[in-house]
Amino acid sequence: MNVIVQTTRRSFDAAPSRPLRSTVFFHHQDLSETNLEELKLFSNLSKKSNHILISDDNVTRLYLKPLIDCIRPLDLKIHPITIPSGEQSKNLQTYGTILQQSIDFGLDKNSTIISFGGGVIKDLAGFLAATLFRGVGLICIPTTLLAQVDAAIGFKQGLNLPQGKNLVGSYYSASEIWINTVFLQSLSERSIRDGLSESVKIALCQSEDFLEVLDNIQSSDINCLTQVVEKSVLLKIGVMGGQPDWGEAVRLYGHCIGHALEHLSCGDLGHGESIAIGMCISAELSALLNIADFALLQRHYTILKSIGLPTKVPPDVDPGQIWDQIRHDKHFIEGKMHTAILRSIGVIARTADGGFAYGFGKDIVLQAIRINQSRMD
Amino acid sequence: MNVIVQTTRRSFDAAPSRPLRSTVFFHHQDLSETNLEELKLFSNLSKKSNHILISDDNVTRLYLKPLIDCIRPLDLKIHPITIPSGEQSKNLQTYGTILQQSIDFGLDKNSTIISFGGGVIKDLAGFLAATLFRGVGLICIPTTLLAQVDAAIGFKQGLNLPQGKNLVGSYYSASEIWINTVFLQSLSERSIRDGLSESVKIALCQSEDFLEVLDNIQSSDINCLTQVVEKSVLLKIGVMGGQPDWGEAVRLYGHCIGHALEHLSCGDLGHGESIAIGMCISAELSALLNIADFALLQRHYTILKSIGLPTKVPPDVDPGQIWDQIRHDKHFIEGKMHTAILRSIGVIARTADGGFAYGFGKDIVLQAIRINQSRMD
Repeated sequence: MNVIVQTTRRSFDAAPSRPLRSTVFFHHQDLSETNLEELKLFSNLSKKSNHILISDDNVTRLYLKPLIDCIRPLDLKIHPITIPSGEQSKNLQTYGTILQQSIDFGLDKNSTIISFGGGVIKDLAGFLAATLFRGVGLICIPTTLLAQVDAAIGFKQGLNLPQGKNLVGSYYSASEIWINTVFLQSLSERSIRDGLSESVKIALCQSEDFLEVLDNIQSSDINCLTQVVEKSVLLKIGVMGGQPDWGEAVRLYGHCIGHALEHLSCGDLGHGESIAIGMCISAELSALLNIADFALLQRHYTILKSIGLPTKVPPDVDPGQIWDQIRHDKHFIEGKMHTAILRSIGVIARTADGGFAYGFGKDIVLQAIRINQSRMD
Repeated sequence: MNVIVQTTRRSFDAAPSRPLRSTVFFHHQDLSETNLEELKLFSNLSKKSNHILISDDNVTRLYLKPLIDCIRPLDLKIHPITIPSGEQSKNLQTYGTILQQSIDFGLDKNSTIISFGGGVIKDLAGFLAATLFRGVGLICIPTTLLAQVDAAIGFKQGLNLPQGKNLVGSYYSASEIWINTVFLQSLSERSIRDGLSESVKIALCQSEDFLEVLDNIQSSDINCLTQVVEKSVLLKIGVMGGQPDWGEAVRLYGHCIGHALEHLSCGDLGHGESIAIGMCISAELSALLNIADFALLQRHYTILKSIGLPTKVPPDVDPGQIWDQIRHDKHFIEGKMHTAILRSIGVIARTADGGFAYGFGKDIVLQAIRINQSRMD
């Protein structure tokens, strides 16, 4: 099944809009049995130009040779680049290095950057594609559950700064997003759980039915995971094509506090783990405004716990530290943290002026974090 | 007079299009007499957010205090940043530094970057605005003739790499472009000539009448320069709103070889000086294809010489070196240099398939350069 993901404008952003569009290819097949020509993948790549394929050392070790073998019949000039795995590679320095390598490999305006890995690789490769020669081709092959259900389905590309996540970036679309769930088989249980957190986000914001599917998920069953990926992607595509403010609200649910926690943990917390806690704080904020009832609040904690995700800010983290980190977030504007909250499952609360981004000051955010920290397990 | 500059798509680029739009404010007035509120400039800047104003040390020395005094009545939080003047500042390292400063000054999504200087400052500030938080506000105050007639009127923002000019960048629009020709009074004669080169480019590609105006220019007469700026900007805006392939061809006339020469000269040749020579080589290429006649070729040399611009590749530069440098250009694609050539004044030659970008191989480019080098003065 192939589907189109597109959006025409954004909401929170001061920048002018541009149409963005990708084709998503769903697929579950060993690379040794995959015929790219039949799937019509990579069909637009110039045979005369050079291209690069960026992956991290884990993905390179497991899948680079099979992928290159799979691409070989297409007779393309593709140069692999491997970078160290982990969030710490998503910075200006690595960006500068892969820019230089792109020039050294003789890339031109007709070249394509292929990202092959998780969210970090996608963001780095995407920002490279958006800015090299002011834009070259981009193909995305997400290999983690997190990237397949969320990171790869979208147009944001970015880098971290020492002060926070994704502070530098742009909006740019891959022409092709190739989702092959065969890659999920080599992921650790923790990595699978981390990815499921974004599916829970999608379910909480959009679909009670999907939330019930996630209640009963067998995360070691690849067929079950494949269904979760497809459902997550289709729901996310619905978001991308819908009202931009609402889409942004869904996409970022739990993310403002989640990003702060992820950054403060220096790698101890995964992205999905961090936003799991972030979603619980968002529910606490909604409850403090008397918008969420107790059942909705509890639903956040129970679904995330049942999957094995963390739900509470670690006791050694001071709420004030989190606030200081939030101050560097892109959605910290004019002194307030801007974030969506839920009214019920599938319903994002509206602000007085009809928007979806509630602005929260320091006091109520600290209060919500303290309530979260004091909850019984 | 205020005019709108906009474009809806690009041509040579693989990236998807986006609408881009700026308002250009023309003006000639000392800063001490300028009332920004009356001019409706800076009216969209948030009073709650922090903003930065980027200039180079020359502009800071001459105009920073008067500009700050002029902005003061608006009660805005604007933090000045000064960088060393010159093309060598337009790199990833300076970009990283101003990114850090932006975070340190507490910028948020509602912040605006104000560029105050020539083309280098515009490109650095523009790329910062395009990528900080994936896009913040941008206002451009060009202070050189080159920036007023060309660099600031457009949407390309970019950085140089060690291998070549503008290899990194994006398309992004300033909300306001404030052209005050009062800044031209402090420019050196050489800097004025350098800027006039882009006006000659515009005239050669678009208007015989304007070329005649430039034949008789008094470059020390500020009223005369003000007229040249207005005419150049209006013609360039016509290009931006016209057929994208044609616009790109006009914008880049003489630039592919010009950029190579500029880069190889390590700062000895200005941008306008370099493209003056580049335009002469383009005319030689057109003559070699029997498209340009002798009169058109001669017109290139005479108009540029009459302004005092160089027209010949320096004798110590080997044509092979230039070709090696062109290989890193964004318009070196699939082994060929792509550039526009003229059929007559105001008429860009069409390729067999109706396009404007002729592809030239190594032999003919080297031949054109050698003919240029051997021309009598």
